[in-house]
Amino acid sequence: LEGSELAKAIKKGDRRALSKGITLVENSGNGAAGLLRMIRPQSKAFVLGITGPPGTGKSSLVDRLIGVYRSKGLKVGVVAVDPTSPITGGALLGDRVRMLAHSQDSGVFIRSMASRGWSGGLSRATSQVVRLLEAAGFDIILLETVGIGQSDIEVVGVSHAVIVVLMPGLGDDVQVSKAGLMEVGDVYVVNKADLDGADAMAVNLIGVMKGSKSRFPAVIKVSARTGEGIASLEAAIETIRLKFDEGHDDLRLKSLKGMILETARGNILERLGHVSDTKLETLARSVHTGRLTVEEAAAKLAA
Amino acid sequence: LEGSELAKAIKKGDRRALSKGITLVENSGNGAAGLLRMIRPQSKAFVLGITGPPGTGKSSLVDRLIGVYRSKGLKVGVVAVDPTSPITGGALLGDRVRMLAHSQDSGVFIRSMASRGWSGGLSRATSQVVRLLEAAGFDIILLETVGIGQSDIEVVGVSHAVIVVLMPGLGDDVQVSKAGLMEVGDVYVVNKADLDGADAMAVNLIGVMKGSKSRFPAVIKVSARTGEGIASLEAAIETIRLKFDEGHDDLRLKSLKGMILETARGNILERLGHVSDTKLETLARSVHTGRLTVEEAAAKLAA
Repeated sequence: LEGSELAKAIKKGDRRALSKGITLVENSGNGAAGLLRMIRPQSKAFVLGITGPPGTGKSSLVDRLIGVYRSKGLKVGVVAVDPTSPITGGALLGDRVRMLAHSQDSGVFIRSMASRGWSGGLSRATSQVVRLLEAAGFDIILLETVGIGQSDIEVVGVSHAVIVVLMPGLGDDVQVSKAGLMEVGDVYVVNKADLDGADAMAVNLIGVMKGSKSRFPAVIKVSARTGEGIASLEAAIETIRLKFDEGHDDLRLKSLKGMILETARGNILERLGHVSDTKLETLARSVHTGRLTVEEAAAKLAA
Repeated sequence: LEGSELAKAIKKGDRRALSKGITLVENSGNGAAGLLRMIRPQSKAFVLGITGPPGTGKSSLVDRLIGVYRSKGLKVGVVAVDPTSPITGGALLGDRVRMLAHSQDSGVFIRSMASRGWSGGLSRATSQVVRLLEAAGFDIILLETVGIGQSDIEVVGVSHAVIVVLMPGLGDDVQVSKAGLMEVGDVYVVNKADLDGADAMAVNLIGVMKGSKSRFPAVIKVSARTGEGIASLEAAIETIRLKFDEGHDDLRLKSLKGMILETARGNILERLGHVSDTKLETLARSVHTGRLTVEEAAAKLAA
């Protein structure tokens, strides 16, 4: 399948065509623009970002949410963005477990994407895969990121709502606020609610939120393992999803802004990655002999 | 201290001026270009990158290497690049331990840098801090990165030599090669050599290296805890450092190329981060109404 045939098959929900389209996005970056133009997604899918530090149980929570939305008859796409190298294993293993649990369900499509090449490429690809899944008829797209560093927060920019997953024992709320996670969440989940300190953490989080006059995100204690609190989490997400379904443009515009920015970023970084080595070598020699500073050479390179 | 006064103080090795310069780099990004122009570092310091997956004991190894170079009378600067958010704790804790061990030694300067803002900013800042340390008279600069994802490999681009730290039980060599780490190392360390599987891992690594016809990096078993193998590691690094001291330009040019690229990348990403929200909103609306695709809007934004 090529070009318009591939686009048609994806819009019909053909899983193999979807896989092929995603591979195209992953491999050719900007080259997938043609496919996406033919598909013209309509921003009907609700994109739910799930982020937080490693080890807080995001994958188990995603598993629970898949169950929640499947029981409503909604089709669920999952993109697990993995900025860690495959060497660490953790996130990939989590995906495999999920794969097994849902592999028989045609209403679920799970794809993990690892970072490759210039780091801007990952967020661009994520934004494009989200649109492919939407075009293929998935109603809910869960975008799980490992929650390390700023790049994940940028990935979350394409989401319509963001769940930040924390757990007791991560350190005090000051650390949470330093990580920049306090600004991105619509819902804060204290997972592993059966552990000591879950109540204290929830109280702390609510205290931190009260410090901000503009935002009042929900704070919910959950145990992804036992299912405790999942119904409350679902309700908190539904209040946002309802707004989305009612056609509030602000959520759609927020996500589109994120997609445009990430795509622009990816394109620029890709171009810089293709700088000729001759040009770079000449500039490096100029710095070496003292004719230019590194900053001056960088300005010439970017020009 | 401002401008040329600050530059003078840094070149005299004043630690408080150095700290102030680093803070300037961290906060103002491109604004530190003036300070760096006044300093004009001479590429005399040997920059040693240390990377690898989390938990392999990079910090302990850095501790050992500080000891090795201090015993030779060399001044050692350490930049611990931490792309993880402060919430995870790990790397920051490692720095604190090192801080305590070496805080009384005026020949050692340790700085940890966490990711902030657009992700390109970190590598640019790292490159600039390396040059400040060099100007302040440090002979060896150890650049420790957490080894997650491509951004660390880019940071390593500014190094004159790169040590990849692994440990038994990380998974098979296929995973190591997938992570892209097989292409960046000059020396491969199997740390925690007392663990089961250390010999097998070293043999595997040597096997993988033999598959590459152009590169023969050293593979060395080490225990950072007991000191076993540290002398062999030191010898392997010295063969590269000797070339550097003899004035081989290729190592210096490689590092300068890395610095120019990272600085250009940081500048471009910073510019994109300052895009006006009005412009972005207009583009998002055009995508929303179907006049533009996300890719077309991104092209207009980057133009």
